[in-house]
Amino acid sequence: MGCIAFIGLGLYGLRDISIGAIEYLRRASRVFMEKYTSILPDFKKEELEVIIGKKIEVLTRGNLEEESGEIIIESAKEGNVAFVSIGDPLIATTHISLMLSAIRENIKVLVFPSPSIINGVIASTGLHIYKFSRPVTLTFIEEKYKYYPFTAYSVLEDNLKRGLHTLFLLDIRISENRIMNIKEAVNVLIELERIEKRQIIDEELTIGIGIARSTAPDECVYVDILRKLKEFDFGPPPYTLVIPGLLHQTEIEALNILGKADKEKLLRWNQRIKSSFLGRI
Amino acid sequence: MGCIAFIGLGLYGLRDISIGAIEYLRRASRVFMEKYTSILPDFKKEELEVIIGKKIEVLTRGNLEEESGEIIIESAKEGNVAFVSIGDPLIATTHISLMLSAIRENIKVLVFPSPSIINGVIASTGLHIYKFSRPVTLTFIEEKYKYYPFTAYSVLEDNLKRGLHTLFLLDIRISENRIMNIKEAVNVLIELERIEKRQIIDEELTIGIGIARSTAPDECVYVDILRKLKEFDFGPPPYTLVIPGLLHQTEIEALNILGKADKEKLLRWNQRIKSSFLGRI
Repeated sequence: MGCIAFIGLGLYGLRDISIGAIEYLRRASRVFMEKYTSILPDFKKEELEVIIGKKIEVLTRGNLEEESGEIIIESAKEGNVAFVSIGDPLIATTHISLMLSAIRENIKVLVFPSPSIINGVIASTGLHIYKFSRPVTLTFIEEKYKYYPFTAYSVLEDNLKRGLHTLFLLDIRISENRIMNIKEAVNVLIELERIEKRQIIDEELTIGIGIARSTAPDECVYVDILRKLKEFDFGPPPYTLVIPGLLHQTEIEALNILGKADKEKLLRWNQRIKSSFLGRI
Repeated sequence: MGCIAFIGLGLYGLRDISIGAIEYLRRASRVFMEKYTSILPDFKKEELEVIIGKKIEVLTRGNLEEESGEIIIESAKEGNVAFVSIGDPLIATTHISLMLSAIRENIKVLVFPSPSIINGVIASTGLHIYKFSRPVTLTFIEEKYKYYPFTAYSVLEDNLKRGLHTLFLLDIRISENRIMNIKEAVNVLIELERIEKRQIIDEELTIGIGIARSTAPDECVYVDILRKLKEFDFGPPPYTLVIPGLLHQTEIEALNILGKADKEKLLRWNQRIKSSFLGRI
């Protein structure tokens, strides 16, 4: 019986892959990779293949979801295999399911942790980890199926009433070639406000922090009211959006330096949080 | 004018250091390290010095806090320097202040992100990132100064009322040789309950998730009511404590497999959250 190593590639090219992971990959009998849930700027699979001296087999969503990663489990019965993904290797719940299936089959599991977008956002914005409440996925509205991501709106409301920051994980559908950008994300939030009318989002007042290619050399961070954020050109993906809660003085300083934020606007936002959200629970 | 790279070592030995970081460290003119806020099991500075071919200068808390990292800033005016820390390089707010000071001085800043304890806890427990509300530091009670960490108690209360998980970052004071273990952490929470009496903590009912050496080969995860957690031997540090909120079926499964949790106890905990906490806001 072999072993499965869950390996993360982090946030940019081959920069974040760990020396522990490289060492394991060089000795692994088979290497699988999943790259349909995220985007890794400047990553070339062939470059990693040269470093580790073997081919990487790319899996589809079907391999992992409908077939529950059976191909990985079966291979691990015969040798030491690796399952590589972008960002942190276990933040996706599908990957945890695969890990548990492996353990149930008496397959040994190793984890090579890597930075996720949460680490990236802290580095890109200077926001305090202690001020982040739960993150939430913001998906595309599917009018055809009458599907609206109301959870994202409710989570934002709940977080703002506590003065806490909300990190939105934006929808990525590689197979459909659809990647939600900051403008689309803002428009989804505005549409949810139009339907729900709970005065959570106001494009002239709500401050948004848009981040593209977090921690990459051409990272882009821009902070402004949502209407301005929609007009800003962030360049290529991946993207993340944060709606901040009550900002600490050092966070205001950081957003000013790292995200070109107007301090006056941030102070007005703090006032609005105090008068319109805090304590309304 | 040079540059400062913020480099994280991740969670275990030299396993998590990235190939990008190694490459930078090999070319850096000076390498500084801070190791008074965290513990990196099985890390030997000398091993890293051999790999990067130069000495690492260890900084004190005084160097970074009272002197605001002046030694790093001054060195970066003359060459490309590195500032290495345990876990993620920017999760500590002191490090963000140093980053901003550097930018204000027109020093270029690079970040080599690394896994933090948040990535570790997800891997060790299988809990969903979407269910974590804000983390909080749990410090020692200092009776002499009448200091009690009431914030931790309030954050836990707020999170439980929303059915969300709370990650406690436990006090580490390397210079005083004091590292809060799981038993001490539980005792602090019990003491806070004794004073506050808001029925948040009950050592016979509250479920705790104790984690030692997250993701290391000898990682230890144990899940039980707090009274049992206090009696459990977790071995050497570092330690983390999570008090879960309402657990999803797959989280119950994961805690059973990864943390030897009794499923019945977890289902009773879910019942208690529903009856005693949810909606009481």
